[in-house]
Amino acid sequence: MGLPLYQKVIDTIVARIAAGELLPGGILPSEFQLAAEIGVSQGTARKALMMLEQHGIVRREQGRGTFVTARTPDSSLFNFFRLRRPDGTIIKPEVVSEEIRERPADAAEQTALHEHPDLVTEIRRVRSLDGVASAIETAVVPAALFPGLARRAPLPSALYILYQQGYSCIVLRAEETITAVTAGAAEAELLGLTPGSALLRVERVATDILGRVVERRHSLYRTDGLCYKVTLE
Amino acid sequence: MGLPLYQKVIDTIVARIAAGELLPGGILPSEFQLAAEIGVSQGTARKALMMLEQHGIVRREQGRGTFVTARTPDSSLFNFFRLRRPDGTIIKPEVVSEEIRERPADAAEQTALHEHPDLVTEIRRVRSLDGVASAIETAVVPAALFPGLARRAPLPSALYILYQQGYSCIVLRAEETITAVTAGAAEAELLGLTPGSALLRVERVATDILGRVVERRHSLYRTDGLCYKVTLE
Repeated sequence: MGLPLYQKVIDTIVARIAAGELLPGGILPSEFQLAAEIGVSQGTARKALMMLEQHGIVRREQGRGTFVTARTPDSSLFNFFRLRRPDGTIIKPEVVSEEIRERPADAAEQTALHEHPDLVTEIRRVRSLDGVASAIETAVVPAALFPGLARRAPLPSALYILYQQGYSCIVLRAEETITAVTAGAAEAELLGLTPGSALLRVERVATDILGRVVERRHSLYRTDGLCYKVTLE
Repeated sequence: MGLPLYQKVIDTIVARIAAGELLPGGILPSEFQLAAEIGVSQGTARKALMMLEQHGIVRREQGRGTFVTARTPDSSLFNFFRLRRPDGTIIKPEVVSEEIRERPADAAEQTALHEHPDLVTEIRRVRSLDGVASAIETAVVPAALFPGLARRAPLPSALYILYQQGYSCIVLRAEETITAVTAGAAEAELLGLTPGSALLRVERVATDILGRVVERRHSLYRTDGLCYKVTLE
C-alpha cells in the first residue's frame, strides 16, 4: 500500500516549484520526459498534470506545453485581499505600525499550524485608509518556517510575496471566517472609536502549495470607510 | 455595426434556457445543427459554446455533446449560502416568519434593478438557528418580473429555486458586500439582543442568466452561533 503513482509525480513537481527550480511562468518538462525521469507511465504523468491544472498550479497550453502558473504581486493582492471602498474600488490600506515578535505558540496555533510549532512569529500591524486607522491585523507563522522575519522589518504590505520570494513558500489557498464583534477598549483606542463600536472580524487560515498550514491571521476592520466584497457564482 | 455573430448564438441559447425549452442537464443541439438553425458558421457556433462553457452555463463532454449545467437545489444552496457554524458545518437556518408586500421602489432600487421598476415585491424573513432568531433577511425584486409572489406564500427557504422553477429566472451570480453594524432597537428586539450588539450586514445584488439584476437583498446576522465562510484561491 503506497501513494498512488501520480501522487509521486505531483510531489516531485510541487517540490521543484517550492525549491525555486521551477519558476512561476516557467515551462515544465513534457509528459514523456517527466514519465522517464520519475519512472512512471506517460498516462500517469498526464494524470498528475491534469490534477495540478485543476488545482491551478500549472496551466496547459495546447501545442505549447505546460507552465507553472504565474502568481504576481498583483494577482496575490487581488486574490487574497477582499477589502473595497463602499463603491467597489480596490483599496490598499497603508501599514502605519508594525510589531514583530517571537513567542510560544498557544494551543490552537500549535494544533493548526504546520509541524505543530512550539515557537511562532507574530506580526501585528495597524493599517490606515485615507489617514484613518482602519484595521488591526495579526498574522502568526511557525518561527522555524520563516527564520529571521523580524530582521527584515519593515515587512512589505503583502506578506505572501515575502513568503514566496524570501522563503519559497507559495500560499495558494485561504479560508476566511467572518463575524461581527464589538470593539474592546484597546482596539477602540487603536482605531479611534468608541468602545462597543461594531467591527468586522476576519480569521484566516492560509495553506501553501505543499498543503501546509503556514499562517493563521485575524484581522479587525472598521467598516465605515471600507467593506469586504465576495462574488458568488 | 451589429453584435458579433457568436453573441447571436449565445442569446438564442440563453433565451431557450430562460424559457424552459432547454432544461438543466438537457443536451444542446450539435454545433452543426446550431450553425444551420441560426445561420452562422460552425466555427461561430463553436466559439459561442466555448464562451457559454466559460460562464458555467453549459458543460461540454468529450464525445457526448454539450449539456445545460444543472443547478440543483443543493448546488444553489451551496453556491449562494455561505453561513456556517463556527466549526465549519453547513447550516440552514429555518424561516420562522415571513412578510411579503408590494410597495413603490426607492430610488436606489429603481436604479439598480432590471427595467428600473416603479413597483417592487419585498420579502422580509426572520430565520432561526437551533431555536434562536439569528437572521433578518430582506429580498427586493421587481414586481413585474415575479407576478403573484405573495399568493405563493409561504415561500421556500431557498428563493432562487422558486425564481427558477416558478419564473424561469436562473440566478447565476451574486455580489456580496459585508460590513459590521450595531443593532438598532427594532432589530435587537427581533433577534433577542441588547441594542448596540454587533451584527454582520450582507448586501447582495443577484444577476440572472440573461444578465439582469433581478434581486437586491440585505441581511443582518448575529454571529455568536454562525459565521460567514469564504475560500480564496
